[in-house]
Amino acid sequence: MQDGREKGVVRSVMLDDGQSALVLLDQTLLPGEKKYLHLTRLEDIWEAIYQLRVRGAPAIGIAAAYGVYLAAKASAADTYDGLLADFLKAKEYLASSRPTAVNLFWALDRMERRFRQEAGRTPAEVKAALKEEAERIRAEDEEVCRRIGEHALTLLKPGMGLLTHCNAGTIATAKYGTALAPIYLGQERGYGFRVYADETRPLLQGARLTVWELMEAGVDVTLICDNMASIVMKEGRIDAVLVGCDRVAANGDTANKIGTSGVAILAKHYGIPFYVHAPLSTIDLNCRTGDDIHIELRPAEEVTTKWYERPMAPEGAKVYNPAFDVTDHGLITAIITEKGIAHPPFSESIPRLFES
Amino acid sequence: MQDGREKGVVRSVMLDDGQSALVLLDQTLLPGEKKYLHLTRLEDIWEAIYQLRVRGAPAIGIAAAYGVYLAAKASAADTYDGLLADFLKAKEYLASSRPTAVNLFWALDRMERRFRQEAGRTPAEVKAALKEEAERIRAEDEEVCRRIGEHALTLLKPGMGLLTHCNAGTIATAKYGTALAPIYLGQERGYGFRVYADETRPLLQGARLTVWELMEAGVDVTLICDNMASIVMKEGRIDAVLVGCDRVAANGDTANKIGTSGVAILAKHYGIPFYVHAPLSTIDLNCRTGDDIHIELRPAEEVTTKWYERPMAPEGAKVYNPAFDVTDHGLITAIITEKGIAHPPFSESIPRLFES
Repeated sequence: MQDGREKGVVRSVMLDDGQSALVLLDQTLLPGEKKYLHLTRLEDIWEAIYQLRVRGAPAIGIAAAYGVYLAAKASAADTYDGLLADFLKAKEYLASSRPTAVNLFWALDRMERRFRQEAGRTPAEVKAALKEEAERIRAEDEEVCRRIGEHALTLLKPGMGLLTHCNAGTIATAKYGTALAPIYLGQERGYGFRVYADETRPLLQGARLTVWELMEAGVDVTLICDNMASIVMKEGRIDAVLVGCDRVAANGDTANKIGTSGVAILAKHYGIPFYVHAPLSTIDLNCRTGDDIHIELRPAEEVTTKWYERPMAPEGAKVYNPAFDVTDHGLITAIITEKGIAHPPFSESIPRLFES
Repeated sequence: MQDGREKGVVRSVMLDDGQSALVLLDQTLLPGEKKYLHLTRLEDIWEAIYQLRVRGAPAIGIAAAYGVYLAAKASAADTYDGLLADFLKAKEYLASSRPTAVNLFWALDRMERRFRQEAGRTPAEVKAALKEEAERIRAEDEEVCRRIGEHALTLLKPGMGLLTHCNAGTIATAKYGTALAPIYLGQERGYGFRVYADETRPLLQGARLTVWELMEAGVDVTLICDNMASIVMKEGRIDAVLVGCDRVAANGDTANKIGTSGVAILAKHYGIPFYVHAPLSTIDLNCRTGDDIHIELRPAEEVTTKWYERPMAPEGAKVYNPAFDVTDHGLITAIITEKGIAHPPFSESIPRLFES
């Protein structure tokens, strides 16, 4: 378990057994090499977040929480205030590693709140509390993913063919992932799913990450190009589509990796259920519909040259490269959260998830 | 014109001005380099077809026709029978360059028929007839493409946004292509089309070839990944989808590059017309429906490693890599041929095209 090398569901972020190092799966080396980094210096943790060695909102948050804990642990301060000063310096430093990662700030702020709740305690007591808080952030994320997986599994049957897009998997979270959680739970229970993974151009998260982590767990997974989703559906290979999400609006409109809306339209055409897996933290009730969601446009080079031996398009070619798209709520069969499953009409079922 | 370097619609296969060399655009160098080969030796022409320096069924047929003409022209035989023996040797040799290219055999057989029609003539007369026949094959293909373009243009309006998939363009034919023919004719008439080209994984014919040849002609073309077709349609950028085809069944079901059926489903969802461009030679009345069309499965390496600096999927990953898919006739708005436009129901309109 120390370096996560057991056969099964890969973990990408954890403390080592001695609890003095952050153990990170270097995701920039995937799928060619499975290498765990053992990081103790704050500068190295900063670099790992900055260089996307750890990716996925939950995983980044967990790494940052462990990072400020380890920084506090290494502090020689012998007073609460002295330790707080060191902690805040480390927090500010880590926050600069990926300034647009909301989960990074959320986790760091939560660690600071816990620190301040321990006012008046000894440095040793505060350090123990910080460790507990970081471990709790990790454990809570795993529990959210596991619950999403359990709810989703009630919608699936053994032997089903499942299509997924991009990577909403275990390496992006504490464990299990979101869209892949029911696949891992099903695997543990001998469901024998046959999974198809869209390669997910331009950055190929499906080919590089989803296929890799499912193979690590022994799941039967087959890689296809994005434009092959229609034929595998037509051939009867797919019984359900499972995707994650970046943001869900109050009416159920769902922003996710570019191409998701197209898969949803194909699924509807072929009469295949389309399931969105969403921790409650990704549902934004202040966002009325998908029209309120800004779509990030990314550099042309991701399409024209990245990953390739030689340019894949003429020099100077115009490129349109949106990173996400919005799937209309009318195309979504159900939205699965850790608190249960929302069915249409989502504008009624989604708010109910927040009531209990 | 000698090497096709005029700005405008690129030509990929022709005789040089002195009519002693086959001039071929080396398509394996695209989009990085625009290089014309001047080939006189039969071995070099064989190699160009074998290495896919010339691609596209019509272009291959034209190259082979010119090839056997040049072989005959170079023959020192001073009798009809002597020349025929040399011709048949050259024909058999060229036929071995791409044994699955139907158009290659069609063109070579047509050249042989012409040769035999000239029975009793002098070698010089036969050589002139062969040149005429090869030029006619080229001219007829250009005329078919131009007519498809003219018919298709009646369905389009200036300023429209057009989406195309794969490469059904000028470099695959004598000139103009099929799906791209109306775009070139529109360009000549100042229609100001805005074209979006799917990159077309795994072999990226859209990114490498379609974008290149449209840029050469000065057409406003934007490259997208296949999975971005949904968002550009949703954003109102697309007024019609134009695709070519490999084979059309009697009921209108259409086999074309993998991904075409997905684009058709998206177009239907967004209420956008979906047009198939098909020379009559691609319509197979003996093929009742798309179910009769065999789909070629191609090597995994095209998806996992081809074009890439490093492997894009884990070693040993299972891959499903169909080269084509079938678009159901119910998704097709019209099929455009050189003899006119077929509208649904295609099982009635398609046979009528063959009557006149």
